[in-house]
Amino acid sequence: MPRPRFSFSISATDGKARTGVIEMQRGDIHTPAFMPVGTAATVKAMRPAEVRATGADIILGNTYHLMLRPGAERIARLGGLHDFMGWERPILTDSGGYQVMSLSALTKMSEEGVAFSSHIDGSRHLLTPERSMEIQRLLGSDIVMAFDECTKNGATRDEAAVSMERSMRWAARSRQGFDDGAEHAAGAALFGIQQGALDEELRRISAQKLIEIGFDAYAVGGLAVGEGQEAMFATLDFAPGMLPADRPRYLMGVGKPDDIVGAVERGIDMFDCVLPTRSGRNGQAFTWNGPLNIRNARFAEDQEPLDAGCTCPVCATWSRAYLHHLVKAGEILGAMLMTQHNISFYQALMAAIRESIAEGRFADFARDFRARYGKGSA
Amino acid sequence: MPRPRFSFSISATDGKARTGVIEMQRGDIHTPAFMPVGTAATVKAMRPAEVRATGADIILGNTYHLMLRPGAERIARLGGLHDFMGWERPILTDSGGYQVMSLSALTKMSEEGVAFSSHIDGSRHLLTPERSMEIQRLLGSDIVMAFDECTKNGATRDEAAVSMERSMRWAARSRQGFDDGAEHAAGAALFGIQQGALDEELRRISAQKLIEIGFDAYAVGGLAVGEGQEAMFATLDFAPGMLPADRPRYLMGVGKPDDIVGAVERGIDMFDCVLPTRSGRNGQAFTWNGPLNIRNARFAEDQEPLDAGCTCPVCATWSRAYLHHLVKAGEILGAMLMTQHNISFYQALMAAIRESIAEGRFADFARDFRARYGKGSA
Repeated sequence: MPRPRFSFSISATDGKARTGVIEMQRGDIHTPAFMPVGTAATVKAMRPAEVRATGADIILGNTYHLMLRPGAERIARLGGLHDFMGWERPILTDSGGYQVMSLSALTKMSEEGVAFSSHIDGSRHLLTPERSMEIQRLLGSDIVMAFDECTKNGATRDEAAVSMERSMRWAARSRQGFDDGAEHAAGAALFGIQQGALDEELRRISAQKLIEIGFDAYAVGGLAVGEGQEAMFATLDFAPGMLPADRPRYLMGVGKPDDIVGAVERGIDMFDCVLPTRSGRNGQAFTWNGPLNIRNARFAEDQEPLDAGCTCPVCATWSRAYLHHLVKAGEILGAMLMTQHNISFYQALMAAIRESIAEGRFADFARDFRARYGKGSA
Repeated sequence: MPRPRFSFSISATDGKARTGVIEMQRGDIHTPAFMPVGTAATVKAMRPAEVRATGADIILGNTYHLMLRPGAERIARLGGLHDFMGWERPILTDSGGYQVMSLSALTKMSEEGVAFSSHIDGSRHLLTPERSMEIQRLLGSDIVMAFDECTKNGATRDEAAVSMERSMRWAARSRQGFDDGAEHAAGAALFGIQQGALDEELRRISAQKLIEIGFDAYAVGGLAVGEGQEAMFATLDFAPGMLPADRPRYLMGVGKPDDIVGAVERGIDMFDCVLPTRSGRNGQAFTWNGPLNIRNARFAEDQEPLDAGCTCPVCATWSRAYLHHLVKAGEILGAMLMTQHNISFYQALMAAIRESIAEGRFADFARDFRARYGKGSA
């Protein structure tokens, strides 16, 4: 039986939380899912086989970074992102809309799109909904994200409305651009992105417009941009419910382990975040008892693993004392092992979430997790 | 049958070249052997299992780096270097004599030893033959190197003589210091180091003094310090023959692939060098057709592996184009994969050397290698 292009089936629900599987041409994605971020065609400091061994079903690639280096057309000539980097399973690519505003210089936004200068070499580029769809198609993305504007934190209601309305016009152009190239991307799915900041009415309007356009699934955008966990959760109390219940809901750029547990409680199915990779390189380890900074002098002769309850290869082999030494000495192996542990921890967290939903005890799991993990402040 | 502390058996010779095996408590070392350098308790950018998978039987640790960070006593409290870093096989440690002069500041040399300031935090330390033996014992080293002074390149004959004579007095003190602690290092072997710069008579005197003291094996020191391959080979035409034929001969800090082939031709059995690891991190790959710099723009869309004749996991999976991208982007995975390939190449080179000696065709191998590899200039 041929694999479906995109099919989501929910096997169990528990409150608003759901667990299930997304079937795609390149593999299954078990939800709730965490997608490690592979910005520049690599999950930093990990080989693809090591990423897969943590339990990751899908990774994320960044359109902004890849279009600048090595370039989307180049990756296409080299056979696409999967072959290029050696990852055979699904890849979700963002649209570039968020990073072009946060990383590039001399940005000029218009109805057409965003003109900007590369942060690498200053070269000028134009990113539009149509070009974003083309780039993601050239990369060979499995899950393509609509090109949108991430409304900035602290925007007034009027600003948020104007920004959301533009994103919805860009969503329609993204749908059209995606469909125009669909014959060259037969296995790909397209996700729309809900905006509207923290405002319930704007979120509802955005959801309605996206549903009108029609997407394979829907993301909640514009959160985790500095509003804080309380405001994020308050928005997630209503925003996911506005999106179709039979489609995966993806909360972009989230987050800390306790963010994820709280968002799953509110109906979210997919996550991505640089936190486990970036903070791993900086010496922060995630554990079931909360985060720890391995640079701390108290770990210098600590023979315990990072997390006694972790089954990852790092915890099976090396002590906190060794990792303390590696990170303090700036050794590459320190970044490798801290990252491997953190991604393993995140995947173990997602597996535990999925299992507890399947067994109808997610509320208990979440309560126990929070009691043990603490507030999750690093 | 219990494993011997240190036993060297030569299974075949071909001209001056020899192949055989060193048996030690922690494992066999097939010679000619290349030892990857694990300076600060890590072969940079590689896990121990990855190092072993390249075919490495033994790695090298640096006394100077480890005494400063994390400290020899600390490593001893943590169970020794093997447990600390997760490498179960033999480890050779240098004496610290070379690096204290090249890396530290405010060095003050006397007959007693070398006082110096740490390059990490400026703290003052004293390294003597006795302290070097103690540190290497605390680390749990399998092959301990005598503490010596590496005569600087360009020294006059008188300077070289004075330096060598001091190293020989330090060699006797190293032997005594090693023996005094032998009950705490039952599996360890001690190597003496021949000095004498490029001078045949000084090399002969040094060898005689070392043999008089008596060591498990002998190293050729003071080469690969800037004298050039021609002068090094000229010295290797006579120096190894002054050392006992029934003991392994270790050429310290060498070298380029063509240096190694030429040194094996002259009777050398063991090598170490940072070149495959350090230059890998900088984008240089070693191949059977000579070195290449993966940063070169001509590799940007090259779908071939680094070396079509290489069986390492890197060449089996990734293209030059991908490695070019990773190294240009400063990605950690670039350092990981380039290092893994280079160490794999070095071990494949050593395996090919051993096989050709065993089959009595080493001269042909060396000629073919040089014709294909070129001069080995990077």
